[in-house]
Amino acid sequence: MKLNEEYSDLNVTISFFKKEVQKFVEERNWSKYHTPKNIVQAIHCEAGELSQLLLFKNYSKEQIRNNQQLITDINDEIADVFIYLISLVNTLDLDLSNAFIKKMEKNREKYKTEEFNNGKYYKK
Amino acid sequence: MKLNEEYSDLNVTISFFKKEVQKFVEERNWSKYHTPKNIVQAIHCEAGELSQLLLFKNYSKEQIRNNQQLITDINDEIADVFIYLISLVNTLDLDLSNAFIKKMEKNREKYKTEEFNNGKYYKK
Amino acid sequence: MKLNEEYSDLNVTISFFKKEVQKFVEERNWSKYHTPKNIVQAIHCEAGELSQLLLFKNYSKEQIRNNQQLITDINDEIADVFIYLISLVNTLDLDLSNAFIKKMEKNREKYKTEEFNNGKYYKK
Amino acid sequence: MKLNEEYSDLNVTISFFKKEVQKFVEERNWSKYHTPKNIVQAIHCEAGELSQLLLFKNYSKEQIRNNQQLITDINDEIADVFIYLISLVNTLDLDLSNAFIKKMEKNREKYKTEEFNNGKYYKK
Repeated sequence: MKLNEEYSDLNVTISFFKKEVQKFVEERNWSKYHTPKNIVQAIHCEAGELSQLLLFKNYSKEQIRNNQQLITDINDEIADVFIYLISLVNTLDLDLSNAFIKKMEKNREKYKTEEFNNGKYYKK
Repeated sequence: MKLNEEYSDLNVTISFFKKEVQKFVEERNWSKYHTPKNIVQAIHCEAGELSQLLLFKNYSKEQIRNNQQLITDINDEIADVFIYLISLVNTLDLDLSNAFIKKMEKNREKYKTEEFNNGKYYKK
Repeated sequence: MKLNEEYSDLNVTISFFKKEVQKFVEERNWSKYHTPKNIVQAIHCEAGELSQLLLFKNYSKEQIRNNQQLITDINDEIADVFIYLISLVNTLDLDLSNAFIKKMEKNREKYKTEEFNNGKYYKK
Repeated sequence: MKLNEEYSDLNVTISFFKKEVQKFVEERNWSKYHTPKNIVQAIHCEAGELSQLLLFKNYSKEQIRNNQQLITDINDEIADVFIYLISLVNTLDLDLSNAFIKKMEKNREKYKTEEFNNGKYYKK
């Protein structure tokens, strides 16, 4: 792994994350724990930790961005959810980019801009 | 958006997902809904939908991979969790790749291979 | 089961819920599904369904109480979370009332009224 | 509050829990935090803490029951989910017993014993 500064959302592909997570799991011989059901459970748990950072708080976006400790904690918990999501993708040999593209197409079809053009929202 | 086939985990960066999600949200004037707390709540909800696909089932990985409808559904729900994760990253102006790199470093430090080298696992 | 009207929070004990849930599970031969891990997963799923009823909404309590369909839906989803919680208590042969009493004592000790007397809140 | 030993699932009604939770919340002036959305978020968080106790573990029921520390922790986390569920019931002035009765009727209708009589399960 090179220096942090070399990696950013501008240049890192999903494949990189997949390889990093796979290596981490295999080096610890943890593949046996990473069944689809266990990973989904882990996503629930990490989402809960992320959620706790905001529970009973009414932070504005600015207050969050200006709170360095909170931003660090949020970054860590977002990363944890993401890491398990990537591990699930690894375990089932999926392509996250392709899944994203297809789901976005469905979402655009379901929530057409002609119908949802004034800031309306309702579950469809 | 071009054809699905052009996009894969080998060549898509996080910036692409960020732009796609931002465009989707803005075209519907939904930014006002995408507060950090609401997005985290949405992650809980989508994780729940993902989880339901496996609830009370004992699928092997092979059974999941060979069940085309299930794979489609899992892809869709993974994508939904990911979309909201990206929206949270957008809202708070974070860099997911950098968050990932930093958290993986902490994880490697916390779960050292010298200690976790035999498939052991316990919460630290 | 007698008429709904006979049961209310004033006169129903936890034992009643435990028996009803146990009977429901056994009549369908579903005990094998109700492992602790599966039930906890089900709680995540049902919490997600409850959560979706409020997602991206800014209902006041009055708006919720005056929306009969929403109240019915919320009642149903609260009941689902509760049913699985009771099933977990059944599976592990616990006493929910005793667990509640003990946890409330811990909570009173942790969040002392001398310290939390002005509507303050922070995670301890 | 009298001695723990006096309370058990055989004799405690939901009204007792409702009053205890209400008193706890009011004594700390926390009613303002206990909006329906916040409480639902808290349920997600507490379910996550409960879930973590079992994550990546393959405990049998007997192993859990014989592990006194784990049983204490599980009791505490079940109680936390329950406390927030009761707080939601309080906030919306609902009757949990009535919600339970009605949902169980729907469940019996949906999962008829004639159809689900051999340990089958599928989402309906």
